This record gives sequence, structure tokens and C-alpha cells, in this order.
Amino acid sequence: MKELIKAVAEIRNLKNELYGKDFLLTWEKTVDDLTVILKIAGALQALYHGNVSCRLFDSGLAVSQFRDQSTRTRFSFASAANLLGLAVQDLDEGKSQIAHGETVRETANMISFLTEVIGIRDDIFLGRGHNYMVEVGNALEDGYANGVLPQRPVIVNLQCDLDHPSQSMADLFHLQHYFGGLDSLRHKKIVMSWAYSPSYGKPLSVPQGVIALMTRFGMDVVLAHPEGYGLVPEVVDLARVQAARSDGSFRIVGSMEEAFLEADVVYPKSWAPYGIMKRRTELVSRNDTAGLRDLEAECLATNAKFKEWEYTEARMKSTRKGRALYMHCLPADISGVSCTQGEVQERVFERYRFETYQEAGYKPYIIAAMILAGKFADPAFVLEGIASRGERRTGI
Amino acid sequence: MKELIKAVAEIRNLKNELYGKDFLLTWEKTVDDLTVILKIAGALQALYHGNVSCRLFDSGLAVSQFRDQSTRTRFSFASAANLLGLAVQDLDEGKSQIAHGETVRETANMISFLTEVIGIRDDIFLGRGHNYMVEVGNALEDGYANGVLPQRPVIVNLQCDLDHPSQSMADLFHLQHYFGGLDSLRHKKIVMSWAYSPSYGKPLSVPQGVIALMTRFGMDVVLAHPEGYGLVPEVVDLARVQAARSDGSFRIVGSMEEAFLEADVVYPKSWAPYGIMKRRTELVSRNDTAGLRDLEAECLATNAKFKEWEYTEARMKSTRKGRALYMHCLPADISGVSCTQGEVQERVFERYRFETYQEAGYKPYIIAAMILAGKFADPAFVLEGIASRGERRTGI
Amino acid sequence: MKELIKAVAEIRNLKNELYGKDFLLTWEKTVDDLTVILKIAGALQALYHGNVSCRLFDSGLAVSQFRDQSTRTRFSFASAANLLGLAVQDLDEGKSQIAHGETVRETANMISFLTEVIGIRDDIFLGRGHNYMVEVGNALEDGYANGVLPQRPVIVNLQCDLDHPSQSMADLFHLQHYFGGLDSLRHKKIVMSWAYSPSYGKPLSVPQGVIALMTRFGMDVVLAHPEGYGLVPEVVDLARVQAARSDGSFRIVGSMEEAFLEADVVYPKSWAPYGIMKRRTELVSRNDTAGLRDLEAECLATNAKFKEWEYTEARMKSTRKGRALYMHCLPADISGVSCTQGEVQERVFERYRFETYQEAGYKPYIIAAMILAGKFADPAFVLEGIASRGERRTGI
Repeated sequence: MKELIKAVAEIRNLKNELYGKDFLLTWEKTVDDLTVILKIAGALQALYHGNVSCRLFDSGLAVSQFRDQSTRTRFSFASAANLLGLAVQDLDEGKSQIAHGETVRETANMISFLTEVIGIRDDIFLGRGHNYMVEVGNALEDGYANGVLPQRPVIVNLQCDLDHPSQSMADLFHLQHYFGGLDSLRHKKIVMSWAYSPSYGKPLSVPQGVIALMTRFGMDVVLAHPEGYGLVPEVVDLARVQAARSDGSFRIVGSMEEAFLEADVVYPKSWAPYGIMKRRTELVSRNDTAGLRDLEAECLATNAKFKEWEYTEARMKSTRKGRALYMHCLPADISGVSCTQGEVQERVFERYRFETYQEAGYKPYIIAAMILAGKFADPAFVLEGIASRGERRTGI
Repeated sequence: MKELIKAVAEIRNLKNELYGKDFLLTWEKTVDDLTVILKIAGALQALYHGNVSCRLFDSGLAVSQFRDQSTRTRFSFASAANLLGLAVQDLDEGKSQIAHGETVRETANMISFLTEVIGIRDDIFLGRGHNYMVEVGNALEDGYANGVLPQRPVIVNLQCDLDHPSQSMADLFHLQHYFGGLDSLRHKKIVMSWAYSPSYGKPLSVPQGVIALMTRFGMDVVLAHPEGYGLVPEVVDLARVQAARSDGSFRIVGSMEEAFLEADVVYPKSWAPYGIMKRRTELVSRNDTAGLRDLEAECLATNAKFKEWEYTEARMKSTRKGRALYMHCLPADISGVSCTQGEVQERVFERYRFETYQEAGYKPYIIAAMILAGKFADPAFVLEGIASRGERRTGI
Repeated sequence: MKELIKAVAEIRNLKNELYGKDFLLTWEKTVDDLTVILKIAGALQALYHGNVSCRLFDSGLAVSQFRDQSTRTRFSFASAANLLGLAVQDLDEGKSQIAHGETVRETANMISFLTEVIGIRDDIFLGRGHNYMVEVGNALEDGYANGVLPQRPVIVNLQCDLDHPSQSMADLFHLQHYFGGLDSLRHKKIVMSWAYSPSYGKPLSVPQGVIALMTRFGMDVVLAHPEGYGLVPEVVDLARVQAARSDGSFRIVGSMEEAFLEADVVYPKSWAPYGIMKRRTELVSRNDTAGLRDLEAECLATNAKFKEWEYTEARMKSTRKGRALYMHCLPADISGVSCTQGEVQERVFERYRFETYQEAGYKPYIIAAMILAGKFADPAFVLEGIASRGERRTGI
């Protein structure tokens, strides 16, 4: 296991402040922290491929709370928890007493007595998801400090209104793998571009996660979108600051043509404009159903003006050597496949289909790495222990 | 592990008739049985805190059936099952063929081929929940005797119409811990008091569970409620008989003032009157939706006459040294927090908030103890084995 | 463990082509394959009864996808997965992004990164379920070949529109056990008979599974139904061809009297006529709600003409020695118990009730055998390893 030995050595050379902390936003973590996560994820993948059991828990719950639909993240979280030996228990708010006026701080403790990790998706309403996770985290801190919880479960953000770290870190893992290392990403041009979709209200967390993460690693990050489709200003400012610090760059452009020219990587994806998302949150707070209906109609009508924002073969030709890596968090709105007209042409998507599947396939290891680093102070020691124990994962 | 060695010795000194039996009502168990459960729960907690794996099953299902909403009991059952190595499988009646006219005796067997324990919550309708559990138990007995089931799963009552033993036993564990042992509970005054809540139809099983259990241990139990808010008469009679037998006492009073005076422990909690619950069951049997609506309105109107039944700071002052232990099964209706006016003042609840969380935190160990004692004839031997095996629960 | 040693020796003498393949239809498997499944199932049952741990996976997911209600199959799959060490993760299409226009080929990969087996029930619409499973299988093949999946999960058919192999194989296991071996089944007369039920639209997969499987083992298979209640013609043709090949026989008759005469085994069960099921699929494709309502009314009216098709004590008397083995996949429509008039008289059902429960009880082992044979090339070696490892399943 050469990869493993290498990963362990590299982890030892990095400063790691992940232990006992929630993983909520990549920009709260140091570059060393993020690199440690990538290294652990790589090591776990190598161990899995070598049929070595990565079990670290003989019992313990991994609680998941999905306040929005999920397939791949749900399965990624379940796979990650299971890989380490944890049992998934879903907190289904419909089946709980939360509706009975129970407070967040109370529920957080009630589900955590024998719990090691809580994965939360809360991405629908701007200004809510991240705050909710912080509130849960504070309640856990409080419960642990006051002798209620025998251990402090760590929270893993499975997508909030601001960031989608398990996605963006899997994206980074994919880029690292594709280009041959983190260092090779310096001054690679990556384009996070808005693209047309017949749907409404897609969260901002994926584009925000991408621009906020890739600017940490010296990439030349371009954000492209039609006027009025901006992201949360604080995150855009952050991307700018971080790019300067990492000796990369960050630019916003208003056309796909300009954006994709000589790009190494493209990420065309639909999202709802920041302004719309803000208005939606307000309407939801007031329970204004009619207002929400109007907003959706308005948003779809505005979207329809930008049908031309599709990633086509012609646009692909303008990228570096005509074959920029195409990325997507999936599911993509593929013209003629999942919708009449959408984010990407079928022929282009087909060419990169398995690449996007591989990109998604890193997520279980990324989440497992976040759990491992949050629960064990010395991940290098733990990984060595797993390897030297050498128990089979399957078979006799 | 001094606690463990002590617990094992104490279990050896008690007569234990729990093996192979369902745990449905505390009053069907001997005082020795109940003490054994407390001792096992304490031992499991000590082992957990010592990071010792308590796995006793390498495979096996723990089936849960919730016919009512649940957060803390759901997670407590899942934690308990997982601690012992069982996998939770939920019987969701909506997704099963039970609606197709399948009989209870059949379903009970069909879910039990490789099942070790079945946890059931069925607390909504008076006269139903307990009977249902007995019916399931008889079907399991029958299936086991006739070679259908290779083992007899034990049932753990996760709240029925009569009792809520995992709650009341966690309450008892809490009291034992708080006062320094079961013997210290003799002649401690505990008040199970009705309290106002803006909701309707809360089950009787918590107050019944408390008065029926605490009268076994020589406590001075006071039941307080407005006229018309009585509990199931058989359980009240039982409390009286048991109190006499255990050299404790049992009284019913009609005012909070009288009840709380010099109390050592207070448990102010709303419930629906016995008469209302009986009428509700009848209306449900007839599918009388209009009748149910009228009953709810009537009940809420009656409740509203007793808004004054709130546990306030003034009332707390009248308790022993002004600081009786406040207990609640949670979630409490806290005035100004989860409702405008409810069971308890915010300042009082806040003072005991972490105590109530700890009280809830004993439930996973209590349920695990019920499973362990139901499935293993010699729990002392099993606990010693776990300790001497000494496998880590987490880590490498 | 004499059974185990015998089973291992027998498996070694059979040619086994199950490894790496989905288990979708019994008629795609060789007689040797089917016999291997029975032997593995028997060995697992013996190991379970001997309290030997059958764990073969230290981690890994067993994904279940139920597109129709299920109790016993859901629990059988969960039990089988758990017995081998896999964790069940349910793919609930309502909670996933599948509704967002995601393709089957994509979802299949997204849920499979760390997945060992996928159990699918898709039995409602004729012409759909089997095709869906094939499509999922092709997508997995594709993902595995293209480096997306580190292993190829195998699919186990938990009931499709054509076959219900875990049921029919459990039925065969039951027959083998009852008559003392597969060879003893030669020229035993088994009657798969339509029976009246007040319900509508029961799938054809059970009767088809039974006639298609039992004709492989030299049985004299009789299919009985009123005119117009035929099964899928291709499966009926297959039964005829297979019966000839196995030196058994296959006949279709139009009355219960003729069918049950001197029968060794009877399987009276309701199903919807092939023609109705075809029309239903078309109406569903067109979203024709009114048409579906009319079809249901028409079907129930036609059914009502055949209320006389009930398995009665008088009919039982005409079977071999008056005591043919009664079989059913459960739940049965028992006259006077689960409906006013149904498939079988209460007194008859009661006599065989525990037999039918035992029949159902083989399913977890059958499904576990399908998983084991699909995932391990040398099941005899694996079973020997489990036995010689000799780890306890429960206890200390």
C-alpha cells in the first residue's frame, strides 16, 4: 500500500485542527485541514480497494437529517458511516415530536446520547441552513460540557444555503486526481458558469462551494452568469480575497464565450439568483403561497431569457485543446434527455458521463474522512492502525 | 471498573425472572427484576464510558414499531439495539401489507424470523396499546413453540396506553443517581402533578408509570390533579396497594399548593382525563370525526379552566429547601418558549434543563438492559464477559 | 454440523454459474444453479441454528428498492443482508432526486459506490418490473467496466412482473424439506390454482414463479383457473417445455375439482387476469384515471362470478389421502378472517397455518444464499470457512 504510506507521511507533515470540530464551511478550515481531508479520503479509498476493513466503531449512531431531497448525498453519508462501523439513523421530522414545539437545542441532545456524527442537509432557504447547523453545534457543545452527552458528536454539513463541502471537496479530489496532484492545479482555469434549466430555485451552495474552495489552491477561477444571477456577495468577496492570497485569480464575466475560452475545467450549472432566493425566504416566513407562486413564475420567465446559456459542443471547442474537463454535481439537466433544453448538450455530457460519476464516487470517502478527522485526534496513527491490523473487509 | 464489579455482585444476589419474558408493565415485574434492570443499565453505562464494546450480537434485527410519533424513544431504542450489535428495522405499517387485512398473529411471525427484539409504541388509544403488545407476544410464543421461529424475540414496551416503562425506569435511575441509591428513596416525597398545556390528548402512561413504579420503592407518592383529571382507576388502586406493601405512601390531592409543599421531587405534566380518553377510543372505533372534533374542543375548553396549574417559581419555593428536583419526560410545554402558557415557567425549567436531559439520557441504557435481561439468562456472567473481553468500542 | 458438511460436498459436485450475476428469473438459471442456492440456504440455516456467525462483510450496503408494499420480503431481505454483515439502506424514491428527471443508469451508479447487493421489488405493472431490473443491471455493468464502481453489486429480484424467485425458491425449499429431498418431488402433483379474492390486481409473479420453477424438478404441475384468467403466455409455454425436459408434466384445467383430485400439494391463490394487467399498464401509461376506475370495477365484477373458487374442506378431502400440503405466499384471503369470502376456508387454513409460516421463514436464507452465491465464486469454501472460524452469533 504505497499510497497509504505516502498519505500517512503527508498527514504527519500538516497541521490539523479538525479534531472535535464540525465541518460546516470549507472557508472556516485551513488549507492544511482541507489537504488532510483529501489525504485521509485517498487513504480510505486505497484501503477499500485493497479489501481492508476500515471499521473504527464497534457501535455508535450516525444521524442523518435531510430537510431536502437527496439521493447521492444520502447514500454517500450512509456508505461513509457504514465504512467506519456506524449505523445510520435518520431523523425524520415528520415522524418525530419536533412538530410538538420542541426546541432545536433539546432535539440536538435527545438524538445524540450514543451518537458520533450528525449529517445535515438544510439547503432550501437562504439564511437558514448554516444558522441551523451552528445552532445544533452549540447545543451539542452545551450538552457535552454539562455532562448530558458522553461524547460530542461532530456535524458534517451535507449541504446548506452557503456551502456544499462534501461536494466541493469531492470535486477537488477529482481535480487533484485528474491533473496529478494539488500543485498541478495552480493557474489551471476553472469556470463555474450559470447554465439554463427549466427548473427553479436550485441552491447557490454548489457554485459558492466551488468558487470558495478552488480559490484556495491557486486556480484561476472564473464565475460566469447573466446579469442578475449573482451569488451571495460575502462569498464572492471571499473568493476574491482568497484568490489573491493563494496567488490564483478570480474574475466574474457575463458571457459563456468569454468564460470558456481556454478553460481547463468547466462547471456549467443552473442556480437561482441571490435576489430571488432572498425574496423566497421572506415569502416563506410569511407563508405567502400566492407570492411564492408569482415568484416562481417570474423566475422561470426570467430564466427563459437565457436559454442560450447551454454548454454545447461549439463552446467545448473553445476550451483548452477543445477538451476541458466537464464537471457537474449531478443530476445535470441534459438537453433532450432529462429535459427539452437544459444545462448541457447530450453529446457533450455523454463524453464526460463516467468522469462525472467518478467525481460523485469520491463523496463517500470525503465524508468518511470528515468523520474520521472530527473524531480522532491523530488520523495518521489511526490509518496506520487500520493497515497494520489488516482485517479483510469481505470474505473469509 | 469498580461500578461494574459491584453491579455484577449485586445482580448475583437478586432473583431474576426476566429471561425470555416481554417487558410490558413494571407492575408485572418483581422489585428484584426492576433492580436488576437498573444494575445492568448502570453497568452498560460504565462500560460505554470506559470505551468498552458491549456487542453481544453479531447479527440480528431489532424491530421497531411506532404507532405514534417519537424522537427520543426512537433514538433510545436505536442506540440500545446498536450498542448490543443489533440492526434496527422499522415496521412502517404504511409501507407494509398490513393494510391488506393481514392478522396481527401473522405479521408478528413474519417480521421475526431472525429478530431478537421488538420495540413497540402504541399509546394513543386507551384499551388498545397494551392489548396489542400482549397479542403480539402470544403470537411469538405460538410461532416459537410451533417451530416457526428459531428464537423467541422479546418485546420491549416503548409506551402503551397503561405504562411507559423505559421512561419510568429511566426516571427511577435518575432518582437513584440523584439521591445516592435506591434505599435513599424511602419516604422521599415525589409529586406527580397534572399541569396545564394548550394541547389535547396526551397519554396517561407517563403519570401512571411514575405512580405505579415509585410506590414500589417506599417513596411518598402524591398524585395531584384537578377534579375530573383522574387516571385509569386500576392503576391508581395498584399504586395504593403497592405503597402499603413497600412501606411508602400514596395520596391524591386536588391542588398544586398542597401537593408541592416540602416535596423532594416534582413531576408536573399535562395529561388528558381518563374519561375523555375512553370517549375518544369509542369515537375512533365508530370513525366519528365530528364527535372527535367536538371532544377535542370540549377538552381544550375544560383544560383552559386550569391554566393556573403551572409549575412556577413561587411553587418551587414551597418545596423542600425550595429546590425539589424537577423532572419531565420531555418535551415540556414551557411558558413563553414552546407555547404561550404551559406546564412550567421558563426560569424554573432552565434551572433543571440539563437534569431533564440527563434523565432522558439514561433511556438507551435502560432499554439495552431490558433487551439484555430478556435475551440472556445470566446477565452477571454476560457483563463479566464483556468486561474481561475488553474490546474497544471506538478507535484502533 | 452434518448438514453443513453434506451441503458443502454437494455444492462441490454442482456446476455453479451464479457468481457475479443478478438473480432475476429462475428460468435464466440452470438446475445446478438452483440446487446450489437451496444447498447454501440450508447450510446458512444450520449455521444460524447452531449460533454460528455467518458474517462475510465487515462493511457494505444492501440497497433495497420497494416500488410496492412489502412486509415479509422487506424483513427477509433485511434479515438476509444483516446475517451476512451488510447494512440495509432503503432507496425511497419519494425522498430522492429521482423525481428531478434523473436517469435510471445514473441512479443505479449513484447508490452503488460501496454497495454489494441491490434488492428490487417492482411488480405492479406488466412489462415493466423485469425490464427495469435489467436496465439497472446494465447500468451497473457499465459503471463497473468504466471504473466508476469498485465492485459490481448484484441484483436480487424481490418480485417483478414475471417472477418472484425468492418466494418460489422458498416454496421449493419447503417442498424439498416436506417430502425429504429434491428427488422425492418427481411426479408429485402440485396444483397452482386461481382462487377468488375480493381484491383486484394481484400480480402474476407468484403463480408464474411456481409453474416455471416446479416444472424444472419433474413435478406434475397443474395450473387451474377460470376462463380468461390466464398467465403471461410466454411463461406458460416455458412451463410446458420445461416439464417435458425434466420428465415431469404440465397441464391447464378449468375447474378446481379436476385440479385438486389426488393432488400432493395445492397452492390456491388469487391473481388478476393477464389481459386486465396488460390493459392496466396501458391505462397507467396514459394516466387514464377514469379508465383505471372502470377497469377495476369490471375486474371485480368478473371476479365475483367465480366466488365458488375457494379452497374448502370438501375440496381438501379429494386430494391425496385427504391431506395435500397447502401452500401460500401470504397473506392469504381467509374467508371469515381477513375478508367475508376469499381464497380459503378458515378451518383449512388453520390446519396448515404454521406450515405456511415455515414456508415464509425460509426466505431470509434463500435471499442470503442468492447474495452469497452472487458475491463469492466458491460458496463451498466460504461456508467451510464460516464453520471452521466458528464465531458465535450471539452471546459472550
